[in-house]
Amino acid sequence: MGKRPLILVSNDDGYKAQGINVLIDILAEFGDVIAVAPHTGRSGKGCAITSETPLKVTKVSERPGVEIYSCTGTPCDCVKLACHAITPRRPDLVVGGINHGDNSAVNAHYSGTMGVVFEGCMKDIPSIAFSHCSHSSEIDFTPTYPIIRNIVAEVLKRGLPKGSCLNVNFPNVTEYAGVRICRQAMGSWINEWEAHEHPRGGKWWWLTGEFQTNETDCDADRIALEHNFVTITPTKIDVTDYTLMEDMKNWNL
Amino acid sequence: MGKRPLILVSNDDGYKAQGINVLIDILAEFGDVIAVAPHTGRSGKGCAITSETPLKVTKVSERPGVEIYSCTGTPCDCVKLACHAITPRRPDLVVGGINHGDNSAVNAHYSGTMGVVFEGCMKDIPSIAFSHCSHSSEIDFTPTYPIIRNIVAEVLKRGLPKGSCLNVNFPNVTEYAGVRICRQAMGSWINEWEAHEHPRGGKWWWLTGEFQTNETDCDADRIALEHNFVTITPTKIDVTDYTLMEDMKNWNL
Repeated sequence: MGKRPLILVSNDDGYKAQGINVLIDILAEFGDVIAVAPHTGRSGKGCAITSETPLKVTKVSERPGVEIYSCTGTPCDCVKLACHAITPRRPDLVVGGINHGDNSAVNAHYSGTMGVVFEGCMKDIPSIAFSHCSHSSEIDFTPTYPIIRNIVAEVLKRGLPKGSCLNVNFPNVTEYAGVRICRQAMGSWINEWEAHEHPRGGKWWWLTGEFQTNETDCDADRIALEHNFVTITPTKIDVTDYTLMEDMKNWNL
Repeated sequence: MGKRPLILVSNDDGYKAQGINVLIDILAEFGDVIAVAPHTGRSGKGCAITSETPLKVTKVSERPGVEIYSCTGTPCDCVKLACHAITPRRPDLVVGGINHGDNSAVNAHYSGTMGVVFEGCMKDIPSIAFSHCSHSSEIDFTPTYPIIRNIVAEVLKRGLPKGSCLNVNFPNVTEYAGVRICRQAMGSWINEWEAHEHPRGGKWWWLTGEFQTNETDCDADRIALEHNFVTITPTKIDVTDYTLMEDMKNWNL
C-alpha cells in the first residue's frame, strides 16, 4: 500500500453488514482501506475486550486498495488486533460503522461502534463513528454519502484533538434538516426487560426498553435527530468530572 | 426490607469472588444489601449489554439484610435486571467491586466494574466502584475497610451530582500514603497481543499488553496509585467534548 491515507474500518454488526460495506466503498475514495470487523453481530458490546479466549482473524476478501478481515473478537479487539498485526503502519484514520441503529445520547457507552472509535482515539488516531437511526439490515444509505465525504475530508485535513473523537448519527429520513454539532443527550432507559417462561421451567429475561429523556433542545443529539438533523457529537475519552474533583477536596475522607 | 438504605452491589469477577463478598459484608453495616452479580468472571466487559440471548437470574443465598443473586449477563445487565425485577424499590446506592485488578486511567472504559457504576449513574443513583491493584484471587482487603466505610458514609450523606459517579482504586500495599482525589490518567496500551500456533493450524491471538503513559503527576490516578495513594476519580457519563463542539462550528460541514 502506498502514500494515500491508510484508513482502518470496523463495526459491531459484522463484516457482512450492509453499513460497513457502503462505508468501505466511500472511504476507498480517500485512501487505502483495511477493514477488520467481527465475524458476526456484536451489538451493544461497548468497549468490551476479550481476555479469556484467544482470537482468530481471517482475510475474507481483497481488491485494489481494500482488504477485508473477519475477527472473532469484539469491536475494540478488532481495532487492537488490526493495529498490532494487520495494518502495515499506524492508520491515519479509524472509522466505525455505518451502524444499523443510532448511538446518540448515553447509548454511546453501550455502542460497539463507539467502542471502535474510543479504541482508535485511545491510540491517538483521529476516529469517527457513523450510525444510522434505522435498524433495518437493508437501508438506502445514499443520502448519507455527501455528509460522510465532507466529514472524512475535514478530519483528514484538520485532524482531531488528542483524546477526542466524533460520534455521527443520521436520522432515518432522505432529506436532512442540516448538520448539527451537538452534545450527548442525557436520559435513561426504562421498562428494560421482558420475562418469558422457559419451556423447562423458570423465567428468562430479554433486554428491551424505551429511552426516556427530559431534553427538548436541539443542542442534544437525540433531540436534533428527532428533528431530522444529522448530528455530530464531539466525544472525549477523559471521563473525569473536574467540577466534582474540586468539590470533593472538602469531603471528610 | 425496612427503612435502612437499600444498596445494590455487583461486580465483574462473579458472585463467588472474594472482593464482592468482602464488600457485601462492609455494606451490610450501612443498609440492606442486594447483590446481583455475574455467575462467572466477566472482566473487561465495559458497558456491554446482552441483547441477543435471554438471561437467567437465580438467588444463591440469603441472610438477614443480605440477598445474593447470580445472573448470566454482563455487569451492566446485572444492574439493569436488578432494578427492574429484584430490588423492592429504587436502590439508594449502587456499588461495584471490589475488583481484583485496578481500573484507573483509560481502563475505566474497558472495566466491567465501571460498567456497574456507569449503569447505576445512568439511572440517577449515586454509584461507587472499588478496585484493587492486585489481580490475586486471595487478597488481604483489611486495609481497605476504613476507607470504603468513609467513602460510603460520605456518599450516603451527601449524594453525588446527577451524571457523576466515583471510581476508587486501592494500591497493592498495606500502608496507604493517603486518599487522593484524581483525574483519569491518559495513556495507551502497547504490545497488546501474543500469537500462538493452534494445534490444528493457523494463529491464535491472546490479549496482553503494557500500559504506556507520559503522565508523571500524582493528580493522575494511575501515577498516584504508583505512589501508594488510594485514588478517587470523579467520573462523568457525559462524554461530550464541549471545547471541540465550539471549534467545530467553524468547520466546513
